[in-house]
Amino acid sequence: MSDIPYKIYLDESEMPKAWYNLRADMKNKPAPLLNPGTHQPMKAEELAPVFCDELIKQELDNDTPYFEIPQEIREFYKMYRPSPLVRAYCLEQKLGTPAHIYYKFEGNNTSGSHKLNSAIAQAYYAKKQGLKGVTTETGAGQWGTALSMACSYFDLDCKVYMVKVSYEQKPFRREVMRTYGASVTPSPSMETEVGKRILAAHPGTTGSLGCAISEAVEVATSTPGYRYVLGSVLNQVLLHQSVIGLETKTALDKYGVKPDVIIGCAGGGSNLGGLIAPFMGQKLRGEADYRIVAVEPASCPSFTRGKFAYDFCDTGMVCPLAKMYTLGSNFIPAPNHAGGLRYHGMSSILSQLYHDGYMEATSVPQTKVFEAAEQFARVEGILPAPESAHAIRVAIDEALKCKETGEAKNIVFGLTGTGYFDMVAYEKFHDGLMDDYIPTDAELEASFATLPKVD
Amino acid sequence: MSDIPYKIYLDESEMPKAWYNLRADMKNKPAPLLNPGTHQPMKAEELAPVFCDELIKQELDNDTPYFEIPQEIREFYKMYRPSPLVRAYCLEQKLGTPAHIYYKFEGNNTSGSHKLNSAIAQAYYAKKQGLKGVTTETGAGQWGTALSMACSYFDLDCKVYMVKVSYEQKPFRREVMRTYGASVTPSPSMETEVGKRILAAHPGTTGSLGCAISEAVEVATSTPGYRYVLGSVLNQVLLHQSVIGLETKTALDKYGVKPDVIIGCAGGGSNLGGLIAPFMGQKLRGEADYRIVAVEPASCPSFTRGKFAYDFCDTGMVCPLAKMYTLGSNFIPAPNHAGGLRYHGMSSILSQLYHDGYMEATSVPQTKVFEAAEQFARVEGILPAPESAHAIRVAIDEALKCKETGEAKNIVFGLTGTGYFDMVAYEKFHDGLMDDYIPTDAELEASFATLPKVD
Repeated sequence: MSDIPYKIYLDESEMPKAWYNLRADMKNKPAPLLNPGTHQPMKAEELAPVFCDELIKQELDNDTPYFEIPQEIREFYKMYRPSPLVRAYCLEQKLGTPAHIYYKFEGNNTSGSHKLNSAIAQAYYAKKQGLKGVTTETGAGQWGTALSMACSYFDLDCKVYMVKVSYEQKPFRREVMRTYGASVTPSPSMETEVGKRILAAHPGTTGSLGCAISEAVEVATSTPGYRYVLGSVLNQVLLHQSVIGLETKTALDKYGVKPDVIIGCAGGGSNLGGLIAPFMGQKLRGEADYRIVAVEPASCPSFTRGKFAYDFCDTGMVCPLAKMYTLGSNFIPAPNHAGGLRYHGMSSILSQLYHDGYMEATSVPQTKVFEAAEQFARVEGILPAPESAHAIRVAIDEALKCKETGEAKNIVFGLTGTGYFDMVAYEKFHDGLMDDYIPTDAELEASFATLPKVD
Repeated sequence: MSDIPYKIYLDESEMPKAWYNLRADMKNKPAPLLNPGTHQPMKAEELAPVFCDELIKQELDNDTPYFEIPQEIREFYKMYRPSPLVRAYCLEQKLGTPAHIYYKFEGNNTSGSHKLNSAIAQAYYAKKQGLKGVTTETGAGQWGTALSMACSYFDLDCKVYMVKVSYEQKPFRREVMRTYGASVTPSPSMETEVGKRILAAHPGTTGSLGCAISEAVEVATSTPGYRYVLGSVLNQVLLHQSVIGLETKTALDKYGVKPDVIIGCAGGGSNLGGLIAPFMGQKLRGEADYRIVAVEPASCPSFTRGKFAYDFCDTGMVCPLAKMYTLGSNFIPAPNHAGGLRYHGMSSILSQLYHDGYMEATSVPQTKVFEAAEQFARVEGILPAPESAHAIRVAIDEALKCKETGEAKNIVFGLTGTGYFDMVAYEKFHDGLMDDYIPTDAELEASFATLPKVD
């Protein structure tokens, strides 16, 4: 057994004091958000009715490499951070691989995922601006839970629009949000104009993330003292999530471990963008090289089968246009149990990096993901969220390749959260009722046809 | 802000290498288990058909102060231990108390509670003995989950008898156990003689812990290669759980903190007995003094309203008799959402210590417990199990007393687990549908009448 402990915990004094802005090191900056009407880059004043002022600054700043983490946020981080970097000794042994597997575990807080890292930052800036509350959407519920916790801490009102099918299937998620004082509305609802419009066009719809975003934005912009906040995709979110990667790098450096491959699941990109940030920074500056792999579900393959184009971020088409790998804003992924990976688009930062060849992407079918999840749970003792299990699947596959070649590679992956609220999915898997639907080329082509024309 | 971090994590090298056997320092030893037929102390060979051999040794040994923790168990402990000792800075601030509040958080593993500490030990000894599998009962499901994890790790078969009402109300708990490969049967079942007898006498019964114990014992003793294991009450369990207290003491000593009061919830006593072990040891040896407080639900008040007497451990009356504070083995507590605190009896060790005046006990009504749980969740970011919230309630009350008196007392409590699978209870609380049923004196008297006559 090596000297590396099972869990590497940093001291609080080793926690990052600043977020790292990956964009500062990108030669090709991510494309700007565009006004959906004029197709001109969005200015700060145009974004001001939607987002908090300080967050707009962070969103638009492609040059400042570090943003100091305010003291209040650092205090909150101490409640659940530093998160452990775990050496998966038990998994390595079970696989019989010479590879060394590490995972950064972000599920050790009540929200159950990494989402809290950005939620507390966004709540802090909303409070600082003197706002009364914020609105947001949630699918699987991890972001909504995280934001509820953050708002409760800063005594802000929190209105969550939850995709209707999740609202009904995950009453416990809803109840956790209520415990933290949030109001939770199934989306689409009759509370908003866009909700009424969608319900009229599609009676009986069970909702989608894109639709819930439209509702949350409408309420934020039409209610005095409110702004809208988002848990993924945006540049600001990746900035906040850089704490994951910064801690991971500090912990690995401490033990002289250099990763060969870094793996993360990718829905909107919040976890992957955060995990890889400092490593990608080195790569962009030519200081080090790493294989970096994004893993997405085969049922919602933005990177691997999407188009790199400007697209709407929401179904109601009220949000700015973003340039990203997208399946089209009308794309409805097949029922997949990784709710956090069902978004049609992808972070503009990661999209640009992928386009420029700095990272790889792969997609995996659902049942293979749950096989990996169960295998991992049994030996590592953590029940992973279906989203996180996408990264586990590929980490295990990489470790098995090492078994064949005899290479002792260092494999690092992000374990974004726990699956306590996903037992319906595990049950389907156990009962052999889980399928592996993959969209056809024709379906994707039909969806691409809805992409806006941008010169 | 003081120098004490939010979370005190010990190094792996500081983890206990031996369990501490509190009984070695007790002048009045806990009364022995009695054969229910002869009323004579149970001998090892009488217990052998039920329990694993090594565990029987631990059960009967009142003298050896330390038992070395086998290397294999210490390796497993590293998967989720050392657990953090958290300074509740946020809670202190919210309460405006000069008190310093610390909690030992045992919920950071998939079983969601401290139960894993003993489950892995019991599975290890079963494996070492060459057994094929183990049987057990579970109520709230934390013990069943922990044992499933432990058995999966050592490749042992695991049969769980789950109180029927929990089986139906907590399908997700059941599914986690299945993820770890356990079979889960609702109890009472038609699989056992005792189950059939109980169902014939009480058709439509939703079961009880005492009934599930009877079934699990019957299956263990009638199936070759199987033994029965139990997650609380027994001396061996408190022995294993001493890791909680040993780590807590090491962490406090490291920062020169001496607790004034140590608080734990008490159902069968596994968590409380483990948490207080080294502190109680000092107290028994006259080296230090601490207030030690057991907290139980007002609906199941074994310490505060029970009798100190020999009683049956199970409903089917197939188990040995134990001397303990008990409400009578026929006592059916009112529906209370802290399933882990609904047992009619209490650890013989803790019962003796309470009887001898070494500790206090108090009971709290359910709604006050959930008020504390919600208050705690909002500021400390951990959603507590209802069981754990009993200790939180009393810790907050103690901190508020300090606010009145201006004393900066050190309050330490055990946060045994998380409440992810208890959202139905939280929902009832939010909706104002939770009641505070307390048994009447007449009900208790009727139940005491069933106590066996032991000279």
